[in-house]
Amino acid sequence: MHFPSRMYLRSIAAFLTIAIFGLAHLPLAQAEATQLKTQVPGYYRTMLGQFEITALYDGPIGLDSKLLTNASQTDIQQLLAAKFVGTSKMQTAVNGYLINTGSRLVLVDAGAGKLYGDALGNILQNMKAAGYDANQVDAVVITHMHGDHIGGLLDASGQPVFPKADIYVSKADNDFWLSQKNADAAPVDRQRHFKSSRNIAAPFIENGKWKTFAAGTELVPGVKAVATPGHTPGHTSFAVESQGQKLLILGDLVHNHAVQFARPDVAIEFDTDQKQAVATRLAVFKEMAQNRELVAGMHLPFPGIGHVGTNGAGAYTWIPVEFSPLKK
Amino acid sequence: MHFPSRMYLRSIAAFLTIAIFGLAHLPLAQAEATQLKTQVPGYYRTMLGQFEITALYDGPIGLDSKLLTNASQTDIQQLLAAKFVGTSKMQTAVNGYLINTGSRLVLVDAGAGKLYGDALGNILQNMKAAGYDANQVDAVVITHMHGDHIGGLLDASGQPVFPKADIYVSKADNDFWLSQKNADAAPVDRQRHFKSSRNIAAPFIENGKWKTFAAGTELVPGVKAVATPGHTPGHTSFAVESQGQKLLILGDLVHNHAVQFARPDVAIEFDTDQKQAVATRLAVFKEMAQNRELVAGMHLPFPGIGHVGTNGAGAYTWIPVEFSPLKK
Repeated sequence: MHFPSRMYLRSIAAFLTIAIFGLAHLPLAQAEATQLKTQVPGYYRTMLGQFEITALYDGPIGLDSKLLTNASQTDIQQLLAAKFVGTSKMQTAVNGYLINTGSRLVLVDAGAGKLYGDALGNILQNMKAAGYDANQVDAVVITHMHGDHIGGLLDASGQPVFPKADIYVSKADNDFWLSQKNADAAPVDRQRHFKSSRNIAAPFIENGKWKTFAAGTELVPGVKAVATPGHTPGHTSFAVESQGQKLLILGDLVHNHAVQFARPDVAIEFDTDQKQAVATRLAVFKEMAQNRELVAGMHLPFPGIGHVGTNGAGAYTWIPVEFSPLKK
Repeated sequence: MHFPSRMYLRSIAAFLTIAIFGLAHLPLAQAEATQLKTQVPGYYRTMLGQFEITALYDGPIGLDSKLLTNASQTDIQQLLAAKFVGTSKMQTAVNGYLINTGSRLVLVDAGAGKLYGDALGNILQNMKAAGYDANQVDAVVITHMHGDHIGGLLDASGQPVFPKADIYVSKADNDFWLSQKNADAAPVDRQRHFKSSRNIAAPFIENGKWKTFAAGTELVPGVKAVATPGHTPGHTSFAVESQGQKLLILGDLVHNHAVQFARPDVAIEFDTDQKQAVATRLAVFKEMAQNRELVAGMHLPFPGIGHVGTNGAGAYTWIPVEFSPLKK
């Protein structure tokens, strides 16, 4: 059984109209629903004790699977295919997390801004869709000083996007990425990362809003910096806790869910110290899986909140939270 | 390093204010960002060839894990815990899918309406958030005549929610659920399902909008009814295809992703014929996994769109699509 096609009905109607009235006008067309082709806003909310957590989507970036190391391309392609991730350019989310503790509004990472093209740089827009304004942000705490985490601190004209916020970076990352000596010693193709870091930090250093912290510091009551080095020297995860409920915001401990949960020994070329990055990932995955603790990752599929499941000896699996309404 | 607490600053300010002005007024409080505690609207869009597919969230329902059959409760609890699904009341999504073919707007299943309490019945609200109006829906095609799929056809006053839509149900389900003989023969605790079906169908039968179809029928160009019996006698999946891209809307072929992908032999008490339901699930999972075809399920975690992955001999795994913007 087919529905009678509207095109067909219109053809008949047009024929009749023409037959009766000649070519003077077309028949009244029945309205068709226009395809909207818009996506739902890129935010997702969950409560953690008394803290409200809003995941914010900055956008997708395509990464070449050849950036992954310590495994054969055959193995990597198989792992990607098993999880239905495109095997040439791996779709990779960029996420930020907005924590409203009830007295402080803290953004964890600022996304890429327009450093990596137009597909990214949507955190501000999605924050607005989620009901918050850039002026309300008290602090931006940074997991590490890569462009897809700090690019969103400045707008296209070089002005701070979150005008009232202090920016908090780990002292180790600050000292590494802002060092002219390290920049000069870096391979030529990496020097732009050092330059970009300095450019982004400069206006905040000038206006006194660039702050550094030591690992272990509790930056806001309930938000503690945890050293998880390897990806960068000062790479930091943030342990968030309210009323005994815990969330570890991993930062860049994992870049691809399809590969690095099954094979946590796989690193990525972006890691400053791949060996240390693997050791850190193994330790954190082990602890999070044992404790069944909630985690969030800047490059896990949006909203990037979920659990580290176990999947046989030494292997893990990514288990995203289920979409849920907020309890009233 | 702590941020100075606003509460602390306010205390100092209050002290100073009191010291200077006495108790006449409190100091101007710095605005704190109020927690919003709203969830992102429950819709998610994806393109399938030239068809626009919008997943619509009706809401969550908690199901007792004891409803699952053919496995020990120990095994079931382990499978649920491994996927971080609550083990007493299993969180279970209710989803619908809106297909805009470009010339027809077809809703697949209408959700529960208010038949099962206030947590469900959100399809219409989410459809509006997604930019569509109930008046635009040309047809509602029904996977099967259970209350959480047809309850949303009528509003609280018993009026059709989608006033212009024809309602399409399989002849086998129509004949089974609207039969007084079957109702009389059913166990007492199931008779209300028959009664509810008749109540919901009645106004549409009266106004001539209740239509039945045979398995295999192409209801709209690109949307074909596929018989997948067991859960109900006339249970139907819908094979959607545009420009060679395929999506099989499973209906209720699976009620719990954590258990029934790993153990497709596990059935649920709601199945009219559990043995047939298992056989159908096994056949469809096998075909979808082999063909790597996109599927959608009414009770898979919202948006419920993804793939059937393989996970060892005879076992499968649910692989949700990654949140993605729509291509411009």
